[in-house]
Amino acid sequence: MQLLEDRILKEGKVFPDNILKVDSFLNHQVDIDLLVAMGEEFRRLYAGDNVTKILTIEASGIAIASFAALALKVPMVFAKKSQSKNIGKNLYHTKTMSFTHGREYDIVCSKDYLNEGDRILIIDDFLANGKALIGLIDLVNQSGATLVGCGIAIEKAFQKGGDELREKGVRIESLARIASMTDDSLTFIR
Amino acid sequence: MQLLEDRILKEGKVFPDNILKVDSFLNHQVDIDLLVAMGEEFRRLYAGDNVTKILTIEASGIAIASFAALALKVPMVFAKKSQSKNIGKNLYHTKTMSFTHGREYDIVCSKDYLNEGDRILIIDDFLANGKALIGLIDLVNQSGATLVGCGIAIEKAFQKGGDELREKGVRIESLARIASMTDDSLTFIR
Repeated sequence: MQLLEDRILKEGKVFPDNILKVDSFLNHQVDIDLLVAMGEEFRRLYAGDNVTKILTIEASGIAIASFAALALKVPMVFAKKSQSKNIGKNLYHTKTMSFTHGREYDIVCSKDYLNEGDRILIIDDFLANGKALIGLIDLVNQSGATLVGCGIAIEKAFQKGGDELREKGVRIESLARIASMTDDSLTFIR
Repeated sequence: MQLLEDRILKEGKVFPDNILKVDSFLNHQVDIDLLVAMGEEFRRLYAGDNVTKILTIEASGIAIASFAALALKVPMVFAKKSQSKNIGKNLYHTKTMSFTHGREYDIVCSKDYLNEGDRILIIDDFLANGKALIGLIDLVNQSGATLVGCGIAIEKAFQKGGDELREKGVRIESLARIASMTDDSLTFIR
């Protein structure tokens, strides 16, 4: 998606350990016009797939998933990273590893909001090693819902997560796929 | 706001320790149509106040703040609850206490995204003892930006946070203000 790629080239900052900082427009400060356009792009990609619900994970997936849900006219569910007092006991849960935070954590989702009849589109901001997606897919599988596919803002395609999931038959649509990135150069797969 | 109050009456569940669970439409599963309407209501309330930016805190404020930002046509910034690898060192930070999680935590926001010239509308899902708002207001004050006011989805008006802040001159607009709640009865202040 040209608009997103242009923005990454203009404002993205590359840090050691393959960190791409896009917090001026995507995951700290959020450019709402860009997210509306990204939501429309996810709608275009998944318009024929009868998506009934968007699933994402807190926190930085929520804004992106909100506008995908707006465009597709379906509810959005965000899985939570730990069990808070008021989420109840009736949960699907799985464990995953955070690339950004460098530690294992739980992902939970109430059984009330993922159902057998649902057709789920998973949305997230980044795809690198794929651990968060694998966790979310596990929740979908536990529920008996159908996974329609995944919609990612930025895929670090030089890491293996996306291709490993594609090889397993998971449909993944990434709006920007980074082939390589260094301090002074960033290229996309188109 | 009638639409939100009706939904709370229909689907909200009251648990011990003054917990109100609204996770079927607000902070786990999210009804996008409702959030669009809430965003429009915040716009109506703050339309004349030259808001330049929405500030919220991860995670459950993000979706609501996104639609307030959509309606007011401004960027949204979400403060973070802990310092992740890719947020950098150039931060405003403060400490607050979580009612839901029962522990103290840090709130951080990059200095790049709150500026002296900004007119900030703070958005959050709940207002009870006011600790999260006080933390967010502290970030705004550190930055030298102007606090226009706060927009809250649900205020537990039987707790003191909202009125204490109003007494200090902070404008707070809550779309639903709960006067009292028990297992079988919930009333609003209108």
